Amino acid sequence: MQFTVKQVAAMLGGDVKGDDGDKISMLAKIQDARKGQISFLSNPKYEQYIYTTQASAVIVKRDFVARKEITTTLILVDDPYSSFTTLLEEYHKLVSFQKTGVEQPSFISENSTVGKNIYRGAFSYIGLNVKIGDNVKIYPHAYVGDNVTIGNNTILHSNVKLYADTRIGNNCVIHAGTVIGSDGFGFAPQADGSYKTIPQLGNVVIEDNVCIGANAVIDCATLYGDATIIHEGVKLDNLIQIAHNVEVGKNTVIAAQTGISGSTKVGEGCVIAGQVGLAGHLVIANNTSIGAQAGISKSIKEEGQRIIGYPAFDIKDYFRSYAVFKRLPDLNDRLRELEKKVMHTNSVVENAAENGEN
Amino acid sequence: MQFTVKQVAAMLGGDVKGDDGDKISMLAKIQDARKGQISFLSNPKYEQYIYTTQASAVIVKRDFVARKEITTTLILVDDPYSSFTTLLEEYHKLVSFQKTGVEQPSFISENSTVGKNIYRGAFSYIGLNVKIGDNVKIYPHAYVGDNVTIGNNTILHSNVKLYADTRIGNNCVIHAGTVIGSDGFGFAPQADGSYKTIPQLGNVVIEDNVCIGANAVIDCATLYGDATIIHEGVKLDNLIQIAHNVEVGKNTVIAAQTGISGSTKVGEGCVIAGQVGLAGHLVIANNTSIGAQAGISKSIKEEGQRIIGYPAFDIKDYFRSYAVFKRLPDLNDRLRELEKKVMHTNSVVENAAENGEN
Amino acid sequence: MQFTVKQVAAMLGGDVKGDDGDKISMLAKIQDARKGQISFLSNPKYEQYIYTTQASAVIVKRDFVARKEITTTLILVDDPYSSFTTLLEEYHKLVSFQKTGVEQPSFISENSTVGKNIYRGAFSYIGLNVKIGDNVKIYPHAYVGDNVTIGNNTILHSNVKLYADTRIGNNCVIHAGTVIGSDGFGFAPQADGSYKTIPQLGNVVIEDNVCIGANAVIDCATLYGDATIIHEGVKLDNLIQIAHNVEVGKNTVIAAQTGISGSTKVGEGCVIAGQVGLAGHLVIANNTSIGAQAGISKSIKEEGQRIIGYPAFDIKDYFRSYAVFKRLPDLNDRLRELEKKVMHTNSVVENAAENGEN
Repeated sequence: MQFTVKQVAAMLGGDVKGDDGDKISMLAKIQDARKGQISFLSNPKYEQYIYTTQASAVIVKRDFVARKEITTTLILVDDPYSSFTTLLEEYHKLVSFQKTGVEQPSFISENSTVGKNIYRGAFSYIGLNVKIGDNVKIYPHAYVGDNVTIGNNTILHSNVKLYADTRIGNNCVIHAGTVIGSDGFGFAPQADGSYKTIPQLGNVVIEDNVCIGANAVIDCATLYGDATIIHEGVKLDNLIQIAHNVEVGKNTVIAAQTGISGSTKVGEGCVIAGQVGLAGHLVIANNTSIGAQAGISKSIKEEGQRIIGYPAFDIKDYFRSYAVFKRLPDLNDRLRELEKKVMHTNSVVENAAENGEN
Repeated sequence: MQFTVKQVAAMLGGDVKGDDGDKISMLAKIQDARKGQISFLSNPKYEQYIYTTQASAVIVKRDFVARKEITTTLILVDDPYSSFTTLLEEYHKLVSFQKTGVEQPSFISENSTVGKNIYRGAFSYIGLNVKIGDNVKIYPHAYVGDNVTIGNNTILHSNVKLYADTRIGNNCVIHAGTVIGSDGFGFAPQADGSYKTIPQLGNVVIEDNVCIGANAVIDCATLYGDATIIHEGVKLDNLIQIAHNVEVGKNTVIAAQTGISGSTKVGEGCVIAGQVGLAGHLVIANNTSIGAQAGISKSIKEEGQRIIGYPAFDIKDYFRSYAVFKRLPDLNDRLRELEKKVMHTNSVVENAAENGEN
Repeated sequence: MQFTVKQVAAMLGGDVKGDDGDKISMLAKIQDARKGQISFLSNPKYEQYIYTTQASAVIVKRDFVARKEITTTLILVDDPYSSFTTLLEEYHKLVSFQKTGVEQPSFISENSTVGKNIYRGAFSYIGLNVKIGDNVKIYPHAYVGDNVTIGNNTILHSNVKLYADTRIGNNCVIHAGTVIGSDGFGFAPQADGSYKTIPQLGNVVIEDNVCIGANAVIDCATLYGDATIIHEGVKLDNLIQIAHNVEVGKNTVIAAQTGISGSTKVGEGCVIAGQVGLAGHLVIANNTSIGAQAGISKSIKEEGQRIIGYPAFDIKDYFRSYAVFKRLPDLNDRLRELEKKVMHTNSVVENAAENGEN
């Protein structure tokens, strides 16, 4: 990428304040940026850097008011963060090697169909009756089981594993090593203490615009015709566990190492932090926010709550309780002290009372 | 599958109550089932659905007594749940594509041997001196290291990784991405603050009828001749960590994302929930039940306990303590209030006493 | 390995006390060792076994003083544990099959270069512009993305996945299924509730002598030119999550299933137990020790602390508080009892006061 500040501003629909002729070839953080690079100021706590940055240009909000002299060129936009993201995307498209074509050896069953402009890496495997859309990238060692369908523009990174019957939408990105459609954890206890495996006959449906991190696992539903469903726009981080028959609502975001047990339905627009555990058969209301490492053992019915702990409750209440938890030994000492005093007072009072009676 | 109700009943050794001529081609949950489908009623809380279901037949317990009129056909059996499981299995065998044969390219060392009727997917790898039994399925990208042995009827899903010297029994199922036999986490601290790797020379032994979920890890034992052992009938969920020299007892079930540290021995018939952590060198008694996210730092000597928390203790006691934890700020306020009162009372009493003395 | 005790002692620079002619062909734990095997005594709690062991020789500290008669031969060294480790390493080199050469089919781009004496397993993939040093082992199904560099003597086990631009140092071991360089979890919230993916343009740098367990994930840094950095000598266990822009200091050791959120900097010489979670943008001082399952939500500024809990604090204080936590219902009862008593006393005192006033 080698653009003038003027060209970048035009791309973003922004106005230039300062010299618009500088050439820009790189993006960088405001505290690190040098000449030839562009940065942005969105979070006010980084404002200090705009007065010292060596960036050739900084993207700022239209109503930004400088409190000191500024030497860099400003590009004024409505939303600096989103503008910078747009630039990053453009940059990414330009510099990243756009893989297309088929590397050998790779494997594809005769009755499977693939769209236009796709990349199939060496050692990728495509089973029977698979349907793959346009512009799809299937990296080396990816495994696409029988009867899978994949929409347009989706990327399967190296070694993604899609079990038979999985359905993936458009514009999805699935990172390396993630497994989709493995058997749900279902076993029927037998009289002798052993377990019989319950065949898992459902599948997994991933809707459009879903991103899934690396080495995550999403199990298939138990019964034929049922699906574990990840709805549109969901973002799942690395090493996440999604059990059979779970449903994750639109635009919900879940951080790394969180696990959701079987048949739980998570609402839309939820934000779930890392290492959280959700029990099975729960319903979590829309826009619920769950703190890191929380354990959720009951359904959340009211929308928009922020909870934490195990079992989880309101996050502010949790931290209030936890503050006392840290002083519990002291509390215990105070209680013991008080018990002594009261016992003493009582004996004094009783004595007095007895004396009074006498 | 296309059977009459009569044929299904015969298959299950059940008796028909109602029309036994309907054709059945699918299995479904009682609340979802339609004409042409069969369902079951095992859990009494779903009883309501038997009066409204459109299923062509429902499998029920022999002693089931209807409280309202029923329009569907009933198949009376001793154990509806287990009968339904049997049907699921039959169904699975019929509809699932039974993979056999060898896809190319695949890799097998000359001195390795495989049994009859096996499937070796494209890009599967079989190292030196490997011995594989009959009816084994090795999916694409599975890796079988040198000197591994695998029993009959075992399935390695795509990308399972067996390090050298691993031993797998009969009738095991190992899901995609799971790693077995990786080095135990053993490092000897050196005087300069660095660590020296302790070579890990043992192996992993998986006995018969074990199921392991996706992207789990089981490390090998440290010393030559030692093994990390997963005993017969154990069921391990996704993303589980089993460290070096661990032993998991017969028919124990462990849910997703749980981790067991080095040299811990878990007994038989235990049920361990998700995201549990067990410290190293522990012994866990048979039939122990451990709640989700618990942290186990001491051996459990008495059989049949149910524990939770970190460090874990009795599950009922935990929840009693936790109920008070949630009210701790209130408890603290009450204590402070009481301290004031007692101080006040004491001063009154002391004054009174002084006055009395006067 | 078939050496005399004398030869082993010479190898370790140790002195023999007893018969130095016995042949040794195996290493074993002191409690298990038999004739023909060698063991060591380092931890005093195993001292009892030295008086009964059947090992042909035991490595002990030079100043070891026997309290009973010993029948085995002793090899006296400065550090028995480290001497035993040396022997294990020698043993490992001798017995383990030293893979070299190239198995087919495997994939390597024309403009990539590899050093001397390397192993490239079947189905391994090496992308464009890759540079690989001497004595490197790349097991089957490993994936090395474009522009990756790998130092000398490094081992990538089966199915390790290195995204483009990753840099790996010398003498590293990375276990099966681990993913390095996947996208950081970065999404910009949009006005309509959806999220826009922030392109992740940085990379991952792994310095020398780093070991990483199986199925772990290390994300790349967000901005071009930035890196997620694992410094020299770090040891990471299985299933660990390292988010974008994290830095892990020299010789730090982290146990399984721990997760570190974005931009957190962990100091040198830290020891972090399993299933720990660290929030983002923290700085953890050198030599910090963090207990299992702890949740770290604030930076740790003072070096050498031992902490636990969520949010974490001093480990001894945590266990003191936790001891009271287990008795909370009792504490609550005592408080209620005391409240009644005080109320009663107060009424008595007030009555008395009123009576006194009358």
